[in-house]
Amino acid sequence: RMDQGEKKLSSVDRTPLHTEYVKSKLNLEGKDEVRKLKLFMKYIGVYGADARISGFSGYICELLIINMGDFHRTIEAFAAMRGKLVIGDPENTESFDSPAIVIDPTDKTRNAAAAISVENLSRMKLCSRLYLNGKMPEYVQSNGQRKDAKDRGTNLRVFRIKKPDIMDDILYPQVMRFKNAIWEIMERNDLRPVSWEVCVKDHIDVIIESENKAVPALKIHQGPPVDEPSSLDFYNKWINMKISRGPYILGDRIYVDLIRQQKSIGDVVREGLKKVNIGKNIDDQKEAMEIFDPYDTGKDSCALDLFLSKFIFRAHPPEKTSRNTRSS
Amino acid sequence: RMDQGEKKLSSVDRTPLHTEYVKSKLNLEGKDEVRKLKLFMKYIGVYGADARISGFSGYICELLIINMGDFHRTIEAFAAMRGKLVIGDPENTESFDSPAIVIDPTDKTRNAAAAISVENLSRMKLCSRLYLNGKMPEYVQSNGQRKDAKDRGTNLRVFRIKKPDIMDDILYPQVMRFKNAIWEIMERNDLRPVSWEVCVKDHIDVIIESENKAVPALKIHQGPPVDEPSSLDFYNKWINMKISRGPYILGDRIYVDLIRQQKSIGDVVREGLKKVNIGKNIDDQKEAMEIFDPYDTGKDSCALDLFLSKFIFRAHPPEKTSRNTRSS
Repeated sequence: RMDQGEKKLSSVDRTPLHTEYVKSKLNLEGKDEVRKLKLFMKYIGVYGADARISGFSGYICELLIINMGDFHRTIEAFAAMRGKLVIGDPENTESFDSPAIVIDPTDKTRNAAAAISVENLSRMKLCSRLYLNGKMPEYVQSNGQRKDAKDRGTNLRVFRIKKPDIMDDILYPQVMRFKNAIWEIMERNDLRPVSWEVCVKDHIDVIIESENKAVPALKIHQGPPVDEPSSLDFYNKWINMKISRGPYILGDRIYVDLIRQQKSIGDVVREGLKKVNIGKNIDDQKEAMEIFDPYDTGKDSCALDLFLSKFIFRAHPPEKTSRNTRSS
Repeated sequence: RMDQGEKKLSSVDRTPLHTEYVKSKLNLEGKDEVRKLKLFMKYIGVYGADARISGFSGYICELLIINMGDFHRTIEAFAAMRGKLVIGDPENTESFDSPAIVIDPTDKTRNAAAAISVENLSRMKLCSRLYLNGKMPEYVQSNGQRKDAKDRGTNLRVFRIKKPDIMDDILYPQVMRFKNAIWEIMERNDLRPVSWEVCVKDHIDVIIESENKAVPALKIHQGPPVDEPSSLDFYNKWINMKISRGPYILGDRIYVDLIRQQKSIGDVVREGLKKVNIGKNIDDQKEAMEIFDPYDTGKDSCALDLFLSKFIFRAHPPEKTSRNTRSS
C-alpha cells in the first residue's frame, strides 16, 4: 500500500487533516446524522477501530454520512450491500483487498476502513436489514438466552496468561496468535474445537470449546496414494510397527490405524505451545499459563461472559461485561 | 456403452468366444503364466470379478498375459502403473470411465474390466511393487496383528438383516446400498463413522465403526451468508426459538447453536432407514433388522472377521473366514 521510501503518517499526524476535511463537508445536521450512526453501531457492537473491536471508527462514520447523505440512507446502503464495502475511485480501491475499503479523501493511498473485520461488516449489513424491517430487539446483556454451557455437552477451557503492559494495538495481534496456536494444536490432535472467544482485562483469557476432552485413542493415519513411490516407504515403515490395523487400502490410498495415548486438553496444549512462539511480548508467559474449566472451578473469566453472549447484538464492549452485573 | 437397440450378450453367450480367442493366443507356457498370475491375485485377495470381490476375472488374467507376455512383465506393468489400467485402442477405451479399462477383443464395445474396483487396482499395484522388492509377507489370516477392536476406543455395531435367496450379482449392489444408507444416516447425525465392512453368509451383515455412540448434544447449525436475503429469514426463524446460542455471526455467515436429544446409534439408524428404500429384494427386511455390538453381546459376525483382518493382503474370500479357524 505504501512504497518503502515514504514515511508513514501516524494517526496523530492525520487527525488535523481529517478534522479539517470533515468540517468542510458536514453541517450541524450532518453531524447529527453521524451521531445517530455511531449510536446504532455502538448498539450492535461494531463501533471502534482498535484491535480489540476491529470495527468502524468515528472517521469512517463521518465519511459514510458524507458519502451517503444521512443516517437512513447509510443504513439502506448496508442493508442492500453484497460483498465488500467499497467507497472511492476504482483506481484507488483496487489495490486493497480488505473486507471494507474506504479511500481516505486526505490521502488517496490509504484505506481508512482497513481495521473492519468481515464479522463486523456482516453484522452491520444484517442489523441494518433488521432495523429497516423494524426487527431490532431490545438490547439485553445476553438476549435473555444465557444458558449454562454444560447443557451443550461440550468441554470449555480457559487459557490464561499474564497481560504485559503494552498498547492494545500491539497486544491484540499477539493475543489472536495465541488463540490461533491453541486452536491449531487442538485441531491437529482431534480434540475438535468448535468455538472460541478472547478477552483482555486483568489477564489475557482465551476460552475454547471443544467436542472432545481428551485425544481420541484411534487415529486413522492417511498415507500417500499408491501411485506415489512413497507409498512403498509408508508400507515398509508401518508393517513392522505395533499398530492397531493395517497397512490397508481404501480407494487409491494406503492407510494405517494407530492407537494413541489419550492425553487431556491441558497436556496437549502445553506440549504443543512449547514449539510455537506466540508473540514477542507474551511468549515468556506461556510457561506460567493457567488452564481451567470455568464451571468445574467456578472461576470467573470475561471470556466466558463473551462466550455466553455471542449474539448478533453482542454484549460490547468487553470491559463493561462483568459477572457482577448478572443476576446469577 | 451399448446402443439401446442392441441385444446385450450374457456372460454365457460370450464364454465360447473368449475361449476361442484365448486358445488362439496362448500356448502351454502362456497358460502357465496365467496360472501364476491367478495364484498371485488370489494370494493378495483381488481375484474374482463377481460383485462380492470386485476384482480381476480369469478372462482379464488371460488378456493381461496375452498383452504383457508373461507373469513377470505383468507384475512390472502394475508396479509401474499410475492412474487407470488401460488396455485397448484409444477410440474404444475413451468411452469408459471405470478405474480399469480392458477392451474385450471379441467385442470392442465392451470393457471386460468394468468390475474391478479402485481398491483392488490399488492393491494390485502396491503388491506388485512389494513382490518385485522381495517384500511379500507370509499369508496369515490377519497378519498376526489381530487386536481387540475395543482397544481402538471406538464403537462397533453390526446391522444384520435376512439374506434373500437371489444371485450374488443381484444382491451385492443392494447390500452396498444398505451399507451406504446406514453410513450416510450416521454421518448426517454426527456419529462420525470411520470404517465399515460388509459380509454375506447366512445373513447380510454390515459392520460400522464410529467415534460417537450417541448423537452429540451440540449442533452448530450454519445458516446462509448474510448477503443472501434468506439470512433474514434464518434470523427471524431462530430468534424466538429455544436454542442454546445465537443467532450470531462468524465470518460472512449467520449461525445458531442447537441442543439435540442424544439418541443412540440404533435409534438413529432405525429411524433414518424408514425413509430410505435400500433395495427391492431386501427393503422388506429392514423392519426386522437386528443391531448389536459384537463385543458386548459376544455374537459372531463374519463382518467382524473382515473388519479385524483389513490389511493389504486381506483375508479372502469371506466364505473361508470363520471364527472357528482362529485360535481365540
